[in-house]
Amino acid sequence: MPPANPARRRALTDAAIELLASSGVHGLTHRAVEKAADLPPGTASNYFRSREALLVAAAERVAELHHADTGRAVGRPAPLVDLLTESLFAAATTLRTRYLAIFELQLEAARRPALAQALTGLHDTASQITAGQHDRLGLTIPREKIPAMIALYGGALFTLVTAPPENVNRDLVRDLVRVIVDGCA
Amino acid sequence: MPPANPARRRALTDAAIELLASSGVHGLTHRAVEKAADLPPGTASNYFRSREALLVAAAERVAELHHADTGRAVGRPAPLVDLLTESLFAAATTLRTRYLAIFELQLEAARRPALAQALTGLHDTASQITAGQHDRLGLTIPREKIPAMIALYGGALFTLVTAPPENVNRDLVRDLVRVIVDGCA
Repeated sequence: MPPANPARRRALTDAAIELLASSGVHGLTHRAVEKAADLPPGTASNYFRSREALLVAAAERVAELHHADTGRAVGRPAPLVDLLTESLFAAATTLRTRYLAIFELQLEAARRPALAQALTGLHDTASQITAGQHDRLGLTIPREKIPAMIALYGGALFTLVTAPPENVNRDLVRDLVRVIVDGCA
Repeated sequence: MPPANPARRRALTDAAIELLASSGVHGLTHRAVEKAADLPPGTASNYFRSREALLVAAAERVAELHHADTGRAVGRPAPLVDLLTESLFAAATTLRTRYLAIFELQLEAARRPALAQALTGLHDTASQITAGQHDRLGLTIPREKIPAMIALYGGALFTLVTAPPENVNRDLVRDLVRVIVDGCA
């Protein structure tokens, strides 16, 4: 019977995210994840049978956390520029680790087709969620511009999390968001 | 006396770029670089005393190749959208390896201050070159929007090189460029 302790599984995937950010894809092993989560040897393989399963689980966890946050954000009425500025600024600062982890996985996916397939699935789901939020918000951005908006938002986030942290501030983030929103109008 | 065979140094750094793209930062070692460049053991350490020096040399070589290409591109008169579409499309397809390598280095720099400093230096030079090209082209984009344009161009490139290659086509690239250019106007 597979182990089914959701809290323990979450502890392992959260540790995987931290490891991806701090040590890169190569630092993410079953043993390292167990150690970081303070769990006994063998625990991680009970939950993730292969290294690929561990990588995919980390990606799924980032997506889950991401959707929980954006869901909360769009619940508050605000102009789109403000909404995206706050979301992008938080992603590039307090949540930086999470997004460094997903970008590590995106680069690794260029060499690992199974991971690429899993990320494509997560990306498609994310796009549908964004399109749904778009409809609920009644935004002025034409629907056909949404893929470009998502691509540029994700790309801007890569630029921000890999920039020296002391250079990242709300004004810079707002400048980027304004170009994206104005360009999509 | 330090070795000073520029062709050999270039062969090593070009091999380093290929290795970064194919195996990630972890795959980039002196031995792997020598093997890939078909040079005898010890050659790489003659040119690059540390692993960090090797990483920095790879980044400098990408920057050099990048500036050579963009220099050629702006020599041909064309609307900005066309110019950036061609440049971004080539970067995401035929030159994909080169940019996968630089993005590997950007993520590694988040963990390695000396590499981060080197990349910041290269980025500042690139920004000055872009601003200079901007002036020569007499572009309609206001000068204060150039940092945002560079950040979004780089981010879009990350999104494109990590997307499934079969999804990357000129129309998609043009959509992204149009948003950037319209948003900067």
